[in-house]
Amino acid sequence: MEGRNLLRFLFFLVTGLFLLLFTWANFPYLPSHKAELLDCTSFSPWCTSKSKPHLTTNPSNPTRGHRRHHSSDVPHHPLDPLTVQEIDRVRTILSSHAPLKASKRYTLHAVDLEEPAKPLVLRWKKGNPMLPRRASVIAVVEGESHLLTVDLATSQVTRDDVLPPSGYPTMTVEDMTTATKAPLVDGNFNRTIIERGIDLADLACLPLSTGWFGKSEEKRRLIKVQCYSMKDTVNFYMRPIEGLTVLVDLDSKQVVEISDRGQNIPIPNAANTEYRYSAQSKPMNLLNPISIEQPKGPSFTVENDHLIKWANWEFHLKAGSRAGVIISRVMFRDPDTGLLRNVMYKGLTSEFFVPYMDPTDAWYFKTYMDAGEYGLGLQAMPLDPLNDCPRNAYYMDGVFAAADGTPFVQSNMICIFESYAGDIGWRHAESPITGMGIREARPKVTLVVRMAASVANYDYIVDWVFQTDGLIRIKVGLSGILMVKGTPYVNMNQVPGQEYLYGTLLSENVIGVIHDHYLTFYLDMDVDGPDNSFVKVNLEKQMTANGESPRTSFLKATRKVAKTEKDAQIKFKLYEPAEFHVINPSKKTRVGNPVGYKVVAGGTAASLLDQGDPPQKRGAFTNNQIWVTPYNRSEQWAGGLLVSQSQGDDNLAVWSDRNRPIENKDIVLWYTLGFHHIPCQEDFPVMPTVSSSFDLKPVNFFESNPILRMPPNVENDLPICKPAASA
Amino acid sequence: MEGRNLLRFLFFLVTGLFLLLFTWANFPYLPSHKAELLDCTSFSPWCTSKSKPHLTTNPSNPTRGHRRHHSSDVPHHPLDPLTVQEIDRVRTILSSHAPLKASKRYTLHAVDLEEPAKPLVLRWKKGNPMLPRRASVIAVVEGESHLLTVDLATSQVTRDDVLPPSGYPTMTVEDMTTATKAPLVDGNFNRTIIERGIDLADLACLPLSTGWFGKSEEKRRLIKVQCYSMKDTVNFYMRPIEGLTVLVDLDSKQVVEISDRGQNIPIPNAANTEYRYSAQSKPMNLLNPISIEQPKGPSFTVENDHLIKWANWEFHLKAGSRAGVIISRVMFRDPDTGLLRNVMYKGLTSEFFVPYMDPTDAWYFKTYMDAGEYGLGLQAMPLDPLNDCPRNAYYMDGVFAAADGTPFVQSNMICIFESYAGDIGWRHAESPITGMGIREARPKVTLVVRMAASVANYDYIVDWVFQTDGLIRIKVGLSGILMVKGTPYVNMNQVPGQEYLYGTLLSENVIGVIHDHYLTFYLDMDVDGPDNSFVKVNLEKQMTANGESPRTSFLKATRKVAKTEKDAQIKFKLYEPAEFHVINPSKKTRVGNPVGYKVVAGGTAASLLDQGDPPQKRGAFTNNQIWVTPYNRSEQWAGGLLVSQSQGDDNLAVWSDRNRPIENKDIVLWYTLGFHHIPCQEDFPVMPTVSSSFDLKPVNFFESNPILRMPPNVENDLPICKPAASA
Repeated sequence: MEGRNLLRFLFFLVTGLFLLLFTWANFPYLPSHKAELLDCTSFSPWCTSKSKPHLTTNPSNPTRGHRRHHSSDVPHHPLDPLTVQEIDRVRTILSSHAPLKASKRYTLHAVDLEEPAKPLVLRWKKGNPMLPRRASVIAVVEGESHLLTVDLATSQVTRDDVLPPSGYPTMTVEDMTTATKAPLVDGNFNRTIIERGIDLADLACLPLSTGWFGKSEEKRRLIKVQCYSMKDTVNFYMRPIEGLTVLVDLDSKQVVEISDRGQNIPIPNAANTEYRYSAQSKPMNLLNPISIEQPKGPSFTVENDHLIKWANWEFHLKAGSRAGVIISRVMFRDPDTGLLRNVMYKGLTSEFFVPYMDPTDAWYFKTYMDAGEYGLGLQAMPLDPLNDCPRNAYYMDGVFAAADGTPFVQSNMICIFESYAGDIGWRHAESPITGMGIREARPKVTLVVRMAASVANYDYIVDWVFQTDGLIRIKVGLSGILMVKGTPYVNMNQVPGQEYLYGTLLSENVIGVIHDHYLTFYLDMDVDGPDNSFVKVNLEKQMTANGESPRTSFLKATRKVAKTEKDAQIKFKLYEPAEFHVINPSKKTRVGNPVGYKVVAGGTAASLLDQGDPPQKRGAFTNNQIWVTPYNRSEQWAGGLLVSQSQGDDNLAVWSDRNRPIENKDIVLWYTLGFHHIPCQEDFPVMPTVSSSFDLKPVNFFESNPILRMPPNVENDLPICKPAASA
Repeated sequence: MEGRNLLRFLFFLVTGLFLLLFTWANFPYLPSHKAELLDCTSFSPWCTSKSKPHLTTNPSNPTRGHRRHHSSDVPHHPLDPLTVQEIDRVRTILSSHAPLKASKRYTLHAVDLEEPAKPLVLRWKKGNPMLPRRASVIAVVEGESHLLTVDLATSQVTRDDVLPPSGYPTMTVEDMTTATKAPLVDGNFNRTIIERGIDLADLACLPLSTGWFGKSEEKRRLIKVQCYSMKDTVNFYMRPIEGLTVLVDLDSKQVVEISDRGQNIPIPNAANTEYRYSAQSKPMNLLNPISIEQPKGPSFTVENDHLIKWANWEFHLKAGSRAGVIISRVMFRDPDTGLLRNVMYKGLTSEFFVPYMDPTDAWYFKTYMDAGEYGLGLQAMPLDPLNDCPRNAYYMDGVFAAADGTPFVQSNMICIFESYAGDIGWRHAESPITGMGIREARPKVTLVVRMAASVANYDYIVDWVFQTDGLIRIKVGLSGILMVKGTPYVNMNQVPGQEYLYGTLLSENVIGVIHDHYLTFYLDMDVDGPDNSFVKVNLEKQMTANGESPRTSFLKATRKVAKTEKDAQIKFKLYEPAEFHVINPSKKTRVGNPVGYKVVAGGTAASLLDQGDPPQKRGAFTNNQIWVTPYNRSEQWAGGLLVSQSQGDDNLAVWSDRNRPIENKDIVLWYTLGFHHIPCQEDFPVMPTVSSSFDLKPVNFFESNPILRMPPNVENDLPICKPAASA
């Protein structure tokens, strides 16, 4: 065994040296001494590309999507995001704010609109003067997190709270990119890379959030860096340098610790890992062109960049750096009265929790919280027109701030489109039993608001789907690339019976590690007004009395109004079913039912990790599928305001355990959608989309079917299409 | 109380007499004596329309869909359904079969292809001589059920088994229509109808299966008839004559018993019940035309009427009178080898179970099994082109036999179309973390096979959705009209606190009664061949050893191969998650994983009725969400071959409890999709579609992502469309 390891070492050493020599001889900008070697921008295509502006759209499709200039944007609605000019003002104001001015280095980790108080927004109407504009800023100043309010009217910093050191704000894009360069200054790191036969020019490294597991993760901002070989493939994710983990201080950019345990694990081959169409040797085209067509244009309008009006719906839409998509003031025009009715004040993806199921050294900490650690909006790349969204889509940009406060545009980050899949909105045909010959069917057309956040390897597609019947479906698609683990095995028949791989052997030397995804949504429901109640409608088996009926049992529905938060901590049980309603106790339908919306689960998964496990403490917002809290503007992020290295002392579970009254109050519904993912070979080298969803569905909100009077399709209304010229 | 009842009686008597007088004076074909009154065809629009041929397509759209003449159909594939000519032959052969010839009256309840033995079909190839054609017939002869085989080559009846009297076959359409007329010969029935103020001309009656609750439902074919008023609305379902139930002998057409308990319950008003577009006074058009367009035509072909080829898929499709849609020989062309690989030998909707949750006299028996009692194919009306299916759909007919053996065509019963909803097949964009500027996304296009069965009030939309990545989604949509209950209440504030309504007050005097839907699918999986195993992959919390890891827990996957049937009786548990694989233990991927498909649940519901309750005994196939049985050609219908009035002694639960070996055998997977339905006002007067689904998903079936090489959409391939002339 010892001899074999020595042999391996020698083999890698020789190979490494050979590669180094080869690189030396062939690379035009070859570093001549170590100092240059450390500057990865000068030699690694990986690093080089990183220094490009991140607004790049796909150069092969320069005309697709849109390019808007935001320099003259003006807010029209109190919830409109900060404009380029406003972000510039915030930066200027902060730069003369004493605590920041005094600091040699401070970084801005969030620069967002501080939304006006809810009652003010609810009262505000188009034509009214704009409500005062304020920015909410999270800054790290000399290692401390500050929560600041910048009043744009008075140019004053009206709040500057130093936050407790449990957790840190979302990493900046600069944090992420610079962290990956830090290991290169470390000799041990470079040595092991070379020893493993990797050309430094092929090195690709990722900043992986460390989580929190005790003292060692406290009092400084840390990141773990793991690296891959991108030789012969852009899909470096499939070529891990297994077992090599570098702990980096995010502020000092210093290497704190290197763990180097996987020397005996080969880097998996690049074969079959390429996923770009341009690189496929045998493209496979099995289908004729197919397209959703609307020759008279879409049926929705976008007023003042953010107000979406479609069918009976009206809502405010904006991009957020942390949540990605923020939907506000969702209202439905009642088909009977013609009046706009409130449904939801605000909805957003509050937090993701993605624990990997491998407790070993290089994997145990992988328990990501993508919204709070990486920022879903920051990771939501420009959507690819015609492929990420159909031809009829409208694109919306995000305007965010860099670490130094400079505004930048995340272009084509959200798309909005109408969808028709051939589905049926409602139908009824009279059967031969009655023979009445009636056939009535209505096509189902929906409006989709989409973003796709690429948090490194994984791609999260989040759709808010609005139906004409008042239903809102929140649908999540998972695609992208797996986070995989290197292994010496190339076939399952090599694995000793008692050895557990923590996942599936996907390809030679590649294990797809089992993991979960939990997506927690913040849904500030305002069903016909802010004051609502949460009602659990239980379906329970009821036995009939002796002789009462030939039936011995039936399911009986009983309504239970939740008085306090603990009444609304819900774990789903297939054999203890219930409906979950948010109702307005003050408003009833004509026949006396309270108006409401219910949350309807689709397929989902629950977190089974131990309650005492540090990741589950931090991710305790996944302990239930549903929570209901009283509205509190400081409680919007399920994992807490500061999530990086958070310790689980300030999150949804903690808030809910206060057990505050929630009956007939302004309440917020939280829903967690879960996935267990045991990878399979089909997920290699890029995963076909897996999706699930849940619905917010009117329940006695309308007097009757709100789409009863919608017309059927008739041939004469449908478009006339011909193949495109080139086709 | 007594006095009040007398007053009520007098009121209804006077109203009834008045209505009778009014009818007398106004109705052109007024019956002059009782004998005529009994012949409903002469006066009731309801009955009149029933006598129309049930092949009618919507007269307002005569050109939509297609009309095929089936007189010259010839079978090309061993699984092709019986042709018109073959059914005619079966009828002729049976008419001279001694036991039937000797009988004055016999009725045919099923005339289907008796599929050749599975090994023969598997061996058969295009170009081979056709396998011998046989028909399987279920006939009722003098009150006894016979199972017959008719050999079409020899014109012999080769089998004639008298079946045990536990249960009866599917009702014929003639059973259903004639049963509803039977009550009209009964004086008591007519009296109570008139007393309740119903003009007999407005009477609409439904044949409701009685279920089985003991001796009284045995040894004769029974049906319960309940009636409605169709005055001023085609939506008579919303105007129940509550509490009036007529038990009818289906063979003698005699009234056995009348239960008349709801005299004090008014017939709900017709207001707002109309759903036909032509009858809407204020149509609501909020959307521009939208359509799925394929100017170069669909990408699928239909060979010899039944063989569907699309993308990498190939399968045989036919209509069945009981199952509706039958999909066979499902194969996928492997993108690596180019070879066709078996996935599923046969898939169909085996049984539905729809128990209502009201144990009172007029409702307790409503525990329908729609496939075995009513026939999903028999109830699947012509689909409405452009509304039930998009413009690019292809339509397939059913050819069935009437009670006397005459073939008839259920036209446009199934549609097949390609769908594109703007969804994403897979994607990956490189984030700013790497800055590589990669954006790859592929549109998701699917092939949908659809039927919509209108079992009286309810409409079941069953979609088999094929994805290019090998996934099959089975999706069920529920629409149509609720089965409602009359009530004296017009507002919830009239209901005494302790009174339970068994449902929701939907409109004045209308209660939508709580009910469940269970749809059990028969899925004869043949993953790369008939011999497969069922593997449960459990995810269980595993605690780490002290000091092993900063993590205290992770989820560990363990594989358990089911040895016998009881190992595969699966109840889903959110907190005991598992994957359910059907694998081929003899075939492994390159890296050594067994090839397989997994069944992936979406949102679902479980039956909670008491195990001893007669309906649950009959519906015991819903006791688990998954069952696996060894292939046995006599076990195809989850509720048993004879389901009407079945006693629960011959169904999936009984078969599975034999606990036969299922490892490395030809096995059948059974999946039950469930819905709890607590009606809400939005379901009145016709329900917006509610849907759920489950998936059959490749799991290490392919070496890698099978759609990796699919091309993205490019503008030049997409159609050029303009608005239609009239639009």
